[in-house]
Amino acid sequence: MEEVSTSLPHREGQRESLTIVKVGGAVVEDEAQLAQLLKDFTAIKGAKILVHGGGRRATKVAAELGIETKMVNGRRITDAAMLEVVTMVYGGLVNKHVVALLQAQGVDAIGLTGADADILRSTKRPPLVVDGSPLAVDGSPLAVDGSPVDFGYVGDVKKADGAKIAHFIGAGMVPVIAPLTHDGQGNILNTNADTMASETAKAMAALYDVTLIYAFEKPGVMRNPDDDSSMIPVITRPDFERYKADGTISGGMLPKIENALAAVEAGVSRVIITLATAIDGQHGTVIKE
Amino acid sequence: MEEVSTSLPHREGQRESLTIVKVGGAVVEDEAQLAQLLKDFTAIKGAKILVHGGGRRATKVAAELGIETKMVNGRRITDAAMLEVVTMVYGGLVNKHVVALLQAQGVDAIGLTGADADILRSTKRPPLVVDGSPLAVDGSPLAVDGSPVDFGYVGDVKKADGAKIAHFIGAGMVPVIAPLTHDGQGNILNTNADTMASETAKAMAALYDVTLIYAFEKPGVMRNPDDDSSMIPVITRPDFERYKADGTISGGMLPKIENALAAVEAGVSRVIITLATAIDGQHGTVIKE
Repeated sequence: MEEVSTSLPHREGQRESLTIVKVGGAVVEDEAQLAQLLKDFTAIKGAKILVHGGGRRATKVAAELGIETKMVNGRRITDAAMLEVVTMVYGGLVNKHVVALLQAQGVDAIGLTGADADILRSTKRPPLVVDGSPLAVDGSPLAVDGSPVDFGYVGDVKKADGAKIAHFIGAGMVPVIAPLTHDGQGNILNTNADTMASETAKAMAALYDVTLIYAFEKPGVMRNPDDDSSMIPVITRPDFERYKADGTISGGMLPKIENALAAVEAGVSRVIITLATAIDGQHGTVIKE
Repeated sequence: MEEVSTSLPHREGQRESLTIVKVGGAVVEDEAQLAQLLKDFTAIKGAKILVHGGGRRATKVAAELGIETKMVNGRRITDAAMLEVVTMVYGGLVNKHVVALLQAQGVDAIGLTGADADILRSTKRPPLVVDGSPLAVDGSPLAVDGSPVDFGYVGDVKKADGAKIAHFIGAGMVPVIAPLTHDGQGNILNTNADTMASETAKAMAALYDVTLIYAFEKPGVMRNPDDDSSMIPVITRPDFERYKADGTISGGMLPKIENALAAVEAGVSRVIITLATAIDGQHGTVIKE
């Protein structure tokens, strides 16, 4: 594939920038918030990728179909019926809606799951022993005690194909990635959108100067969740160890930052945790080496 | 996009072959039939594209969601709720299932709707006056008498981007196209799968020696629908006019063959109407100039 190599952005001592924005279901499923986000995303210069969730909509459609949603540690139990729901909602409803909206803004969006062009391959998560602990760095629940939980058709990413993804970008396209992968044996697997984003970022780090932006409902990582002026502007590994030790950062934010640091340590230039209305790279908490 | 031009298959006096297979919902939604079809599709040599339907599954999911399916002349009335259903089922459930199964066979499938990379753009069909007549060549119901029917969020294809589709093929990928388009203004539109296939075939005819295969439940175009040995092996425009005049071909087969002849007259080398278990290009009725 000669056109892949000619379209790669390698330059002597200087790499093209790539911004990967991950946005969750709450924003994607609210038309006004989504419109703003896509306007801001369109304004980002250089190569870019959007990774989206859609969990709330999946829960709603499942309920309408009489399928009960079960979660363990914030992660969805995905039986065969729920797998059909998430494949419909993430891969169809949400993904194509976002692609059509971006196309209307002149962004040459292309919707992809991990199965499409084999960009993200995973293996089905084996039943795991979990408790109420936070998630491990790789996104899987920590095995501590109790009985094993079978998460069902959930994939843990094993391979992200950076060259393939770069091929689309080299052709001027903007990948819009839904949180679904495949196992290479014909099965779609439900996959955490944060993990999709960090695995994609790591794979692209060999080719681009990657900024990974997690858009969420807070201005960044807060010293005090109730005080919006308490945002921590920069977190490095030593900072994190200190904040962890003194209790400044705790709970669900711990695995998020562990994940971000792991991405940074794997070559991603910076991870930014920020408000969904502030994805310009100039706001939020920067996590870097 | 230099890599597009270098990957196009133009050669002096000789064009690469491209086979486009259109398969309907009945086959796609039966796992045994689908497995056989994908095995046969995988065996097709050279560049290829799969276009699929999914109407029966959409009707089933709609019913489970309490949404009534209304059809006029075999075409689905697509209101806002039904548009969500077909976007989920065609773009998500069916498309990603087929892509994952092809990937498992080593085919580098990529699932696309018309919105993805802007490959097929359409305009929303205006309300049309219809009766029980067959469909017109362009797939729209013939306006004859009665009150106008608003088909809702249904798209009539205005532009298929052959160079874009060829770009994927040039990179070794196999497009798997769901029957959805977009209007360039942010809206997904439900689009007839036969039309998706013929419009794609016409657009690719400038670049490839295109064979368009319509896989269905009969061995081909039959003189007598009850006699499987009565298949007509070849139909040209003069043949068609003769068969139409003497009543050999009638009813729903008329617009199908009109459509096929229109594709052939627009540069598609041949259209084959054949059994879903016989897509090797050696069976069925060949429609050619």
